[in-house]
Amino acid sequence: MTTEEVAKKVVELVRKQAWHEALDTLYDKEIVSVEATAPESRGKEAVRGKIDWWVNAMEVHSFKASEPFVAHDRFVVQYDADVTEKESKQRRQISEIGVYTVKDGTIVREEFLPRV
Amino acid sequence: MTTEEVAKKVVELVRKQAWHEALDTLYDKEIVSVEATAPESRGKEAVRGKIDWWVNAMEVHSFKASEPFVAHDRFVVQYDADVTEKESKQRRQISEIGVYTVKDGTIVREEFLPRV
Repeated sequence: MTTEEVAKKVVELVRKQAWHEALDTLYDKEIVSVEATAPESRGKEAVRGKIDWWVNAMEVHSFKASEPFVAHDRFVVQYDADVTEKESKQRRQISEIGVYTVKDGTIVREEFLPRV
Repeated sequence: MTTEEVAKKVVELVRKQAWHEALDTLYDKEIVSVEATAPESRGKEAVRGKIDWWVNAMEVHSFKASEPFVAHDRFVVQYDADVTEKESKQRRQISEIGVYTVKDGTIVREEFLPRV
């Protein structure tokens, strides 16, 4: 798949919150995943752990993904989520950018940048 | 400057279309600049050439920059411009993401990704 094809597939799956399908079909086994406030995660199982944490911790009221921006081996998607953290009952709006790097048709790196 | 400080300064200067001031004060001399449809530019003079081309070629009706998204050494800004290309008289809306990499308080890499 081209970078644009991977980007469109990510957006399609994220809009369905089909996190596991995205991981299983689009991610490289050596994926490096970087959050603003956590150490780097490496490998599919680490990303699976993040997905499981998210699904268990959050009640998701809405999750929006922008159309992708694409050039060369990179694409960017903006996410806007409205969630309640189940434990604290705290509701909050998350606005974040995902910057993805594609190699040989799979995602090898993802970085998430919150709005400041 | 921290990544966030550089990011906020970029947004401030871009909103004034103060391209040369941004280049002179925030960019590393080894800057690598990547467009979707052009070869990589390397060095401040190459970027200055791009700025001069833009300023000469475009009548800018509006140029909007989002608030920055920041994590670690990376920040992202969304740009939405309404321009008329002077030569062709063609008016168009440009929506683009800038992905910037900061090292030691200066921008060492910028990539521009158009919306697909």
